[in-house]
Amino acid sequence: MTTDNSKLLSLQSIAGIKVGTACAQIKQTERDDLALFELAKQSTCAAVFTRNAFCAAPVTIAKQHLASTSPRFLLINSGNANAGTGGSGLQNASSCCDAVAQLADCAANEVLPFSTGVIGSALPVEKIRAALPTAFTALDAQGWEKAASAIMTTDTVPKGFSVQISIQGQPVTITGITKGAGMIKPDMATMLAFIATDIAAPTSVLQACLNQAVHQSFNRITIDGDTSTNDACVLVATGQGKVAINSTDEVGFAPFCQAVTEICLHLAQAIIRDGEGATKFITLSVEQGASEQECLDVAYTIAHSPLVKTAFFASDANWGRILAAVGRAGINNLEINAVQIYLDEVCIVRNGGVAESYTEEQGQNVMREEEILVRVLLGERGNHNTTVYTCDLSHDYVRINAEYRT
Amino acid sequence: MTTDNSKLLSLQSIAGIKVGTACAQIKQTERDDLALFELAKQSTCAAVFTRNAFCAAPVTIAKQHLASTSPRFLLINSGNANAGTGGSGLQNASSCCDAVAQLADCAANEVLPFSTGVIGSALPVEKIRAALPTAFTALDAQGWEKAASAIMTTDTVPKGFSVQISIQGQPVTITGITKGAGMIKPDMATMLAFIATDIAAPTSVLQACLNQAVHQSFNRITIDGDTSTNDACVLVATGQGKVAINSTDEVGFAPFCQAVTEICLHLAQAIIRDGEGATKFITLSVEQGASEQECLDVAYTIAHSPLVKTAFFASDANWGRILAAVGRAGINNLEINAVQIYLDEVCIVRNGGVAESYTEEQGQNVMREEEILVRVLLGERGNHNTTVYTCDLSHDYVRINAEYRT
Repeated sequence: MTTDNSKLLSLQSIAGIKVGTACAQIKQTERDDLALFELAKQSTCAAVFTRNAFCAAPVTIAKQHLASTSPRFLLINSGNANAGTGGSGLQNASSCCDAVAQLADCAANEVLPFSTGVIGSALPVEKIRAALPTAFTALDAQGWEKAASAIMTTDTVPKGFSVQISIQGQPVTITGITKGAGMIKPDMATMLAFIATDIAAPTSVLQACLNQAVHQSFNRITIDGDTSTNDACVLVATGQGKVAINSTDEVGFAPFCQAVTEICLHLAQAIIRDGEGATKFITLSVEQGASEQECLDVAYTIAHSPLVKTAFFASDANWGRILAAVGRAGINNLEINAVQIYLDEVCIVRNGGVAESYTEEQGQNVMREEEILVRVLLGERGNHNTTVYTCDLSHDYVRINAEYRT
Repeated sequence: MTTDNSKLLSLQSIAGIKVGTACAQIKQTERDDLALFELAKQSTCAAVFTRNAFCAAPVTIAKQHLASTSPRFLLINSGNANAGTGGSGLQNASSCCDAVAQLADCAANEVLPFSTGVIGSALPVEKIRAALPTAFTALDAQGWEKAASAIMTTDTVPKGFSVQISIQGQPVTITGITKGAGMIKPDMATMLAFIATDIAAPTSVLQACLNQAVHQSFNRITIDGDTSTNDACVLVATGQGKVAINSTDEVGFAPFCQAVTEICLHLAQAIIRDGEGATKFITLSVEQGASEQECLDVAYTIAHSPLVKTAFFASDANWGRILAAVGRAGINNLEINAVQIYLDEVCIVRNGGVAESYTEEQGQNVMREEEILVRVLLGERGNHNTTVYTCDLSHDYVRINAEYRT
């Protein structure tokens, strides 16, 4: 499931952003595990964070810093989530910001910290402090690909994407990187994603754009239903290009938003493609709902069903498991005879049971594919619909997560 | 995880109940897959059924028949769920009832049909009809153990339990059997469970008792969160013993209810012990909640977390995953510094992070056990608590469910 991800990594630099990486030997000694972003002065920054009540120490500190001033640096480490670490975890996250501030001669609250990796181990602050000078020396506009690798945990490939659009005849560049690959059911953010653009925009405009983009991308993917303690998604605007968007009413806002959404969707889908043990990429489209929420309820019930996920892994067109998942999604007064379920173009369920036209061979042909669309039509309850992306549940998911700490 | 189940199978006959089995060769040819219960005249019967909107044809027919008269026969087949089969599925379930009625010289609505197995294949009515005379010939008060085997699907052991209690100095016997072992998150019923007693009681008393018992047993277990289309739990009272309970106000009701609850809890736990691929039996106790619902939300979020379940499989005391699950359970204003989490007697989380007294060795000692208690104290939010039973997620769960139809 990694072939498509490699295509994504052709990242364009963003004027006003430099990226440096280093190996702090937090969990591994063979690759960089620290990424430092330097943002040009006057950059603006929006972010969304996990809704997990046990949010990690860096999330708490990043929120505080972001509320007090505009950031000049983002510091990300992999290998240790600094989550479930109580008061000392907060001190450790702050100490890392202090260390960056000292080297950069800026204020500590101009640094946002991000961590990903094992929950509950003390963050090795000294190792990070020792590696920081290397990261500073490495700061370079071309550093995005290296950063995409440095933030990986169980990911098998680095994930990033760039787009260039034209707004009122002027070029705008947007580049983003992200990492997964388990404990993925983001709620207002993905595991970690960092996106930058060269437009100028006030934070309020960026935040409106990011909220909209995340709603349709990172908040529509799930690997295992586990919302992480560390999810964060950041959007930076450096103002070093030729376009400014000063309010959400300006004509440039819609195409900009669309481009950011496109990047977020690419990154979110890349996380699913690289899902732990994933062998199939499943798109769940739930249509004809009375509300978006009931479409989401049906989509996530299917996406989180271990029985549906193992059937996809086995390339088994076991539509009965999909039907059973729809049936237990808690939809009020669902008229089961009006429900239709499709695998790609093949109708598998109609009139409360298997479609009369359905043959096992048709189901098998779809199931052999690596990318499968499941469409659920709820039966003219309304005109709401939603799309959720997920993957199958394989032997390797169990192996990876049974071995993660060993 | 099957050792304890074998101990359970010492079943006492119930005066007024005869059980016969036969091999109808529905999916397998080597063992009985049909069970027939004959209930003495004047028996009363209560039942709870799945809440899955796509309920199976036999569930629909059983509900109709139960509403119209008192049953004389229960007919159960394994190997085919007769679910997702539309109008022809209803006809097939009715045809099986007709066949029993013809042989027994009773009315078709005096027969309740139950099916379990693969969803979406046509029920082989002729095979069942052909095997019925053998089941009738086999009818015997001692037939319970054979029936417990005949209703199995992916179960590895038959599951049953008997208790004898004394009510006002008179003996009361209750015997039940059940089957799992995947697609288990019952909602008002388990996969299939059949319980009988020799007391005399009106249906309303039986139903009140069954609702109460199921609430604390079958509705508190989950293997994979998948609520089946076929769940059903039946309680029959033959009135052939010496005790009658005519209202829920009588002194005998409470001890009777307690005994039925005990049976249901034993049977429900036996399903978890025999969960598909299960290697560990996990008891989740969530305490100090503001409501039972928030305790259940926390318990099921833990129980359904693939990350928590794979950590248990690996005997890895990865308490961070439990903490993260508690954090995403959607509890309003959860004071994370007040939350405490225990593995058996070992405190693993306190003050928003790992407990200061905790050592990995302590965690490992608990994790090595086959039965583990996870206690989550929500921090004096209220005095509600709940207990949910689940199992781990192993390689074998994936193997069993990837291979089920092949």
